[in-house]
Amino acid sequence: MKLVSFTAQGRRSFGIAVGTGVHDLGARLGPVVPDLRTLLQVQAVGATFDFSSASAADFSADEFAWDPVITNPGKIICVGHNYEEHRRETERDPTAHPSVFIRFADTLIGHEAPIVRPAVSHVLDYEGELAVVIGRAGWRVPEESAMSLVAGYTVCNEASVRDWQRHTIQFTPGKNFPGTCPLGPALVTADEIDGLDHRAITTTLNGTVVQQATLGDMIFNIAEIIAYVTAFTRLAPGDVIVTGTPGGVGFKRTPPLLMKPGDTVEVTVEGVGTLRNGIVDETGA
Amino acid sequence: MKLVSFTAQGRRSFGIAVGTGVHDLGARLGPVVPDLRTLLQVQAVGATFDFSSASAADFSADEFAWDPVITNPGKIICVGHNYEEHRRETERDPTAHPSVFIRFADTLIGHEAPIVRPAVSHVLDYEGELAVVIGRAGWRVPEESAMSLVAGYTVCNEASVRDWQRHTIQFTPGKNFPGTCPLGPALVTADEIDGLDHRAITTTLNGTVVQQATLGDMIFNIAEIIAYVTAFTRLAPGDVIVTGTPGGVGFKRTPPLLMKPGDTVEVTVEGVGTLRNGIVDETGA
Repeated sequence: MKLVSFTAQGRRSFGIAVGTGVHDLGARLGPVVPDLRTLLQVQAVGATFDFSSASAADFSADEFAWDPVITNPGKIICVGHNYEEHRRETERDPTAHPSVFIRFADTLIGHEAPIVRPAVSHVLDYEGELAVVIGRAGWRVPEESAMSLVAGYTVCNEASVRDWQRHTIQFTPGKNFPGTCPLGPALVTADEIDGLDHRAITTTLNGTVVQQATLGDMIFNIAEIIAYVTAFTRLAPGDVIVTGTPGGVGFKRTPPLLMKPGDTVEVTVEGVGTLRNGIVDETGA
Repeated sequence: MKLVSFTAQGRRSFGIAVGTGVHDLGARLGPVVPDLRTLLQVQAVGATFDFSSASAADFSADEFAWDPVITNPGKIICVGHNYEEHRRETERDPTAHPSVFIRFADTLIGHEAPIVRPAVSHVLDYEGELAVVIGRAGWRVPEESAMSLVAGYTVCNEASVRDWQRHTIQFTPGKNFPGTCPLGPALVTADEIDGLDHRAITTTLNGTVVQQATLGDMIFNIAEIIAYVTAFTRLAPGDVIVTGTPGGVGFKRTPPLLMKPGDTVEVTVEGVGTLRNGIVDETGA
């Protein structure tokens, strides 16, 4: 099943992808289950829903806009330099543990929404990544059972403002400009994914491949990341873990390849989806 | 005015400190204004309340427990090595910008609640800090008007799990164990504070002074921090900025001075309050 968050007729909702349209679950469950995060929460405490008749699209492709697949995650946990080629290109030392930083939820945007290049910096770079959406609460979860926390997978472009990321050794500023983190298009539920390691992750900028790897190239795999993260913080349904980007980022190229207004960037994870976004300059206050 | 969050008779509420007791605003405003963050939000959009008759305590000191002064901040923004002595003791390079990291709200506890030493590490250190509570939304706020965003001040003990803080260069894990961030006792509104620079900040462990500085020793002052932070992320009422700790932290002493069960740690900011907490070992799951 492919779950989505969207806006149609001026109303935020969520639902199930049907072909290129969406079946509107918010219209049916809204008063009790207002968003996709809440659906995951109520499922986590045992609620079951029969979506077998949800086969008709309420809105066709041109009748809705994509929102970030989870609009309001409680925690967005990002892993830095988790592919060897990216670790080497950014000159980071190998570490015995995942490198973890945090994004605020107001950085998120949906598929086909524009990434905003900040007025205060034009050093805007792409980072194609696999994102994991948490479906069950977890604390001190051992690697062996860690995958049972996963509701499913989506695609992230963890776009980074490189000069602000490197103002100090803490990445926070460069990772938290509003409108810099596309997440989507859809949450592909874990039951549809039979193994991740062999799947390709590819980023293109204006049609040219700029990043390419397979998910098995991750230094810390998803189970290891969940085990590490739940040793220090509790995870809950709707939380998002962004698993790191492969080599090929723009700011380490000669000359640097930065994203600018008019560009189109796409991140594809085989079997999970293609996340496409343009770039615009920040306007107004 | 001193605003507080508390639990009494099994109910979470908020109110005004009256002597050593509290006047319960939650009991009067609760259906519309359920918590202190919401009070700040409605005040920010122009609501005014007459609290002049709020002079009677509904609960005396032994009838309520302190909650973190803001129980549910949207953002907790922490500034690292913002006092010269602490920067030098931790061997951090000087930086042209504040070093910013993030805490999740589930790390917060109230005055007199126990700090939890994690089962996975005993390298638990104190960090006495002044905390700023935001009262008005802000984006790209210049230094000159930055102080107008401040609702008031409180005290923070930004207790840190040093080995996990240093697993990689990102501080996230060591700063996000649950129950490691006392915040309170009260929010002292800005109108009661006539200048901060001359005020002492003092941390004691079991009665011995371990940190002492004046707030004017900060490398980046509050206005500079707000201007920097609002350049990359929006602030909203109820957000908290923790402004950094002076020199004297325990893990850089010879031998190291770590917090352990049975200890009592106090942080005092002159005119803002004294935040006192014991230490307990994590128990159960």
